[in-house]
Amino acid sequence: MTLEMHAQRWGDPAAAETLPESTRALVEAFVGTRPTPSATDVALPPNGLAAEMLDPLRAALGADAVLTEDGVRRLRTRGKSTPDLLRARAGDLADAPDAVVRPGSHDDVAIVLQWAQEHRVAVVPFGGGTSVTGGLAARREGYAGLVSLDLLRLDALVAVDQESRTAVLQAGMRGPAAEAALAAHGLTLGHFPQSFEFASIGGFAATRSSGQASAGFGRFDDMVVGLRVATPAGDLVLGSAPANAAGPDLRELVLGSEGAFGVITEVTVRVRPVATQKAYEAWAFADFDAGADAMRRVIQAGLRPTVLRLSDEAETMVNLASQTAIGGEGVAGCLLVVGFEGADVAGAREAVGAVLAGAGGTALGAERGEAWVAGRFHAPYLRDSLLDVGVLVETLETATFWSRRREVYDAVRSALQASLGEKALVLCHISHVYETGCSLYFTVAAPQADDPLAQWWAAKRAASDAMIDAGATITHHHAVGTDHLPWLAREIGPVGVAMLRGVKAAVDPLLILNPGVLIP
Amino acid sequence: MTLEMHAQRWGDPAAAETLPESTRALVEAFVGTRPTPSATDVALPPNGLAAEMLDPLRAALGADAVLTEDGVRRLRTRGKSTPDLLRARAGDLADAPDAVVRPGSHDDVAIVLQWAQEHRVAVVPFGGGTSVTGGLAARREGYAGLVSLDLLRLDALVAVDQESRTAVLQAGMRGPAAEAALAAHGLTLGHFPQSFEFASIGGFAATRSSGQASAGFGRFDDMVVGLRVATPAGDLVLGSAPANAAGPDLRELVLGSEGAFGVITEVTVRVRPVATQKAYEAWAFADFDAGADAMRRVIQAGLRPTVLRLSDEAETMVNLASQTAIGGEGVAGCLLVVGFEGADVAGAREAVGAVLAGAGGTALGAERGEAWVAGRFHAPYLRDSLLDVGVLVETLETATFWSRRREVYDAVRSALQASLGEKALVLCHISHVYETGCSLYFTVAAPQADDPLAQWWAAKRAASDAMIDAGATITHHHAVGTDHLPWLAREIGPVGVAMLRGVKAAVDPLLILNPGVLIP
Repeated sequence: MTLEMHAQRWGDPAAAETLPESTRALVEAFVGTRPTPSATDVALPPNGLAAEMLDPLRAALGADAVLTEDGVRRLRTRGKSTPDLLRARAGDLADAPDAVVRPGSHDDVAIVLQWAQEHRVAVVPFGGGTSVTGGLAARREGYAGLVSLDLLRLDALVAVDQESRTAVLQAGMRGPAAEAALAAHGLTLGHFPQSFEFASIGGFAATRSSGQASAGFGRFDDMVVGLRVATPAGDLVLGSAPANAAGPDLRELVLGSEGAFGVITEVTVRVRPVATQKAYEAWAFADFDAGADAMRRVIQAGLRPTVLRLSDEAETMVNLASQTAIGGEGVAGCLLVVGFEGADVAGAREAVGAVLAGAGGTALGAERGEAWVAGRFHAPYLRDSLLDVGVLVETLETATFWSRRREVYDAVRSALQASLGEKALVLCHISHVYETGCSLYFTVAAPQADDPLAQWWAAKRAASDAMIDAGATITHHHAVGTDHLPWLAREIGPVGVAMLRGVKAAVDPLLILNPGVLIP
Repeated sequence: MTLEMHAQRWGDPAAAETLPESTRALVEAFVGTRPTPSATDVALPPNGLAAEMLDPLRAALGADAVLTEDGVRRLRTRGKSTPDLLRARAGDLADAPDAVVRPGSHDDVAIVLQWAQEHRVAVVPFGGGTSVTGGLAARREGYAGLVSLDLLRLDALVAVDQESRTAVLQAGMRGPAAEAALAAHGLTLGHFPQSFEFASIGGFAATRSSGQASAGFGRFDDMVVGLRVATPAGDLVLGSAPANAAGPDLRELVLGSEGAFGVITEVTVRVRPVATQKAYEAWAFADFDAGADAMRRVIQAGLRPTVLRLSDEAETMVNLASQTAIGGEGVAGCLLVVGFEGADVAGAREAVGAVLAGAGGTALGAERGEAWVAGRFHAPYLRDSLLDVGVLVETLETATFWSRRREVYDAVRSALQASLGEKALVLCHISHVYETGCSLYFTVAAPQADDPLAQWWAAKRAASDAMIDAGATITHHHAVGTDHLPWLAREIGPVGVAMLRGVKAAVDPLLILNPGVLIP
């Protein structure tokens, strides 16, 4: 599998596929089709950095580490949100970096930051390039240029501590490479977001990623015990203990910092033994409320299945309709997928099953659970296929406390439906649960308007307002980027914004790192 | 029970007791005795704040809310470390606040902060007054005066959310009051540090407290889902979701901020149902290594007993010798206490027991476990009794990863023994465990030198250097205060210190809050 994604599409071109007939039929019935153009051979804006400005970098890092070819720059332009893809398809590459720099070590990163400060060049740290919130679309006004700091070469497993169950991973390691390197030691990280195949360890940390197995393994921020960061003000090394009372936990300032406070070069993570048993199964619930209540009971009973994922009525219908392999018979209500991974999962299955049955669930067996596992990283490819036929597909997500779940769900769903119109499909699932609350992840599919970007931003603004008005968060696991700035400001208030700015001024006084990202 | 502690001793005067004969005999045999003086009727430094300066506060908050009586000021002077007690016993009350202000609401707190900014008065937030790291000994040079901001009146349970299992507690609530208020709703917080009977909810948050039941309930910072904070720059309200990716987690900047970034007025905490079953039991292990390894196996197996606590050989010997009620027969090696609380603890007991037995443990039954529970908050009273007879008693603690536990233990223990001499007893226990590591909590008892303060600081410096040299943290759950500043600076490095200063400048630009505390 390649690590280089197509500039206008998700993932590995070899893994892409045309829209399954069943889905195409569904699309035509519900939203109609309208082909989306896909620009080819679009010229990039010229590299605005003079060669003599790049010479010292080439001298310090090696000529191979500083790239200005159009192909390389094109693939470092923005991320993989639907607006990003639509703009790339329309030939808009205005955000392309002037150059791509590939440091080979932590010290190389520090050199780049010093160089960027001297020349007032904006630096965009780049891991897997999978941001869906504009996290790679830094502001370039006021800078001599903008370089993409591609951490691809920082791809080593640095150390394993079997007794403490920790491992030190370089930030540029992608998900599969990290899992493979750990598996050689009998260990797993257990972090499987939808972007797993392409996203990087540093990106997981910088964006507070949360994986599909978060019920059992926790969020990525739960896994981090240490960080090594190059900042314009110097190096920062954190993680002297699993937990401590030595002041505010500065690790939590680096986690979620989206490249605006420093460049994460190494992450020390908690790891666990590779599971020897895996079992996935599905359950049906009468409706979304009943299913959500069952999830709440499981997690509040202290049970921690590896995966807990509930689709609302609409998502259940669409997902089952598109899963032709598992037959056309319907599931009344909502589908819940539960996964168990470990050394011996029988006890956990029995305990969770008892709670789910007690909450009104109907066991559907393994087939639909395993189907979910098989397709767990596939949705972004499906989005490309739907964009190809003129369907606007995008996702957004939030989290709230259990007692507000229904209100938040209704508010966001209504806002999306009202903005996108009656022909739009609005789907939702809960895929991350806590004792006190849960995530809500929305997917929309709507006929593309003449200006699909304006169409989407209107819907996104309406949904984001609904989240904040309801007291929920602007993002459970997609980070802030540039897209969420106004709502982050509302969520944390002016004093919260002042705290972020205070940290920024301390570690990046010349504001070279990811300008315009994260900090309102 | 009173909430007002004696100025020179721990806790409720009615609960104090003279040294048990068995302990006195042990003390005489090992360290000798030498009575410590206890100054009485020491005059306080005069209140340096002019009446007209306090008048606007009295007008805004009520005359009862601004106190300048010596008795009230005396009880707000420093905390409860052994140096604090020794200085109080010696009649040194130089750190007494000029006035004690008792706000009745969040808005009152905001008024006090604005007043303090106008008049350049240092403000020391005061919860239970149980700091053992100089957290209440703020610098007063450069200020017009210093007031203790006593949160005693903020003592309400504001809200309970049974579905989300959260509760909103005002910051001045003490541990027992919070538990009693929650128990009326069938809920418990589960936070039981040794200071539980006196310390406050706000203090738990501000110092990242960790309780004796942290194995099962987590640290206090794990329990916090929301915070309301009054800062000199304005209000800060955090906690829109159980977890999110909306930038750095600013809650983690308030947690551990020790009153230097703002005054916490409300804390939203995760709560759990009151346990209907409780079982405590003891196990014996051949030595500290074997016991620590057993704890590691328990926690890495995913088991979460409520309490896990292992004493090293020396602490095991001393504790059992002083527990005359449970007989004089010895325990070979090290004693481990395990506690289980919940709706049904049988399964957990069986699972944990199997791991402990498999790790070489010998089950000792319930008696010694229950004896530990009965005396769990008593040690500070024993310290007073030992200080009375001239024994220097103090504690310090750290945390590290499992693979470094032995090295850190040896280094800190050797440093203490070398500094305090061969007659000193150096005891240790592990009372907080994580998948990746554990705490190490040391208690020393030594014959007091002519200058016991100098004697202690030399030992403390040696132990602190040993912790940082070994890569461990300067504190697992006692916070930074003023005592740990140089080692915090080493632990987080200059960039970490710059981050703290950046936040401080953003929220407290005139530096009125707890000057000299937390920030190196």
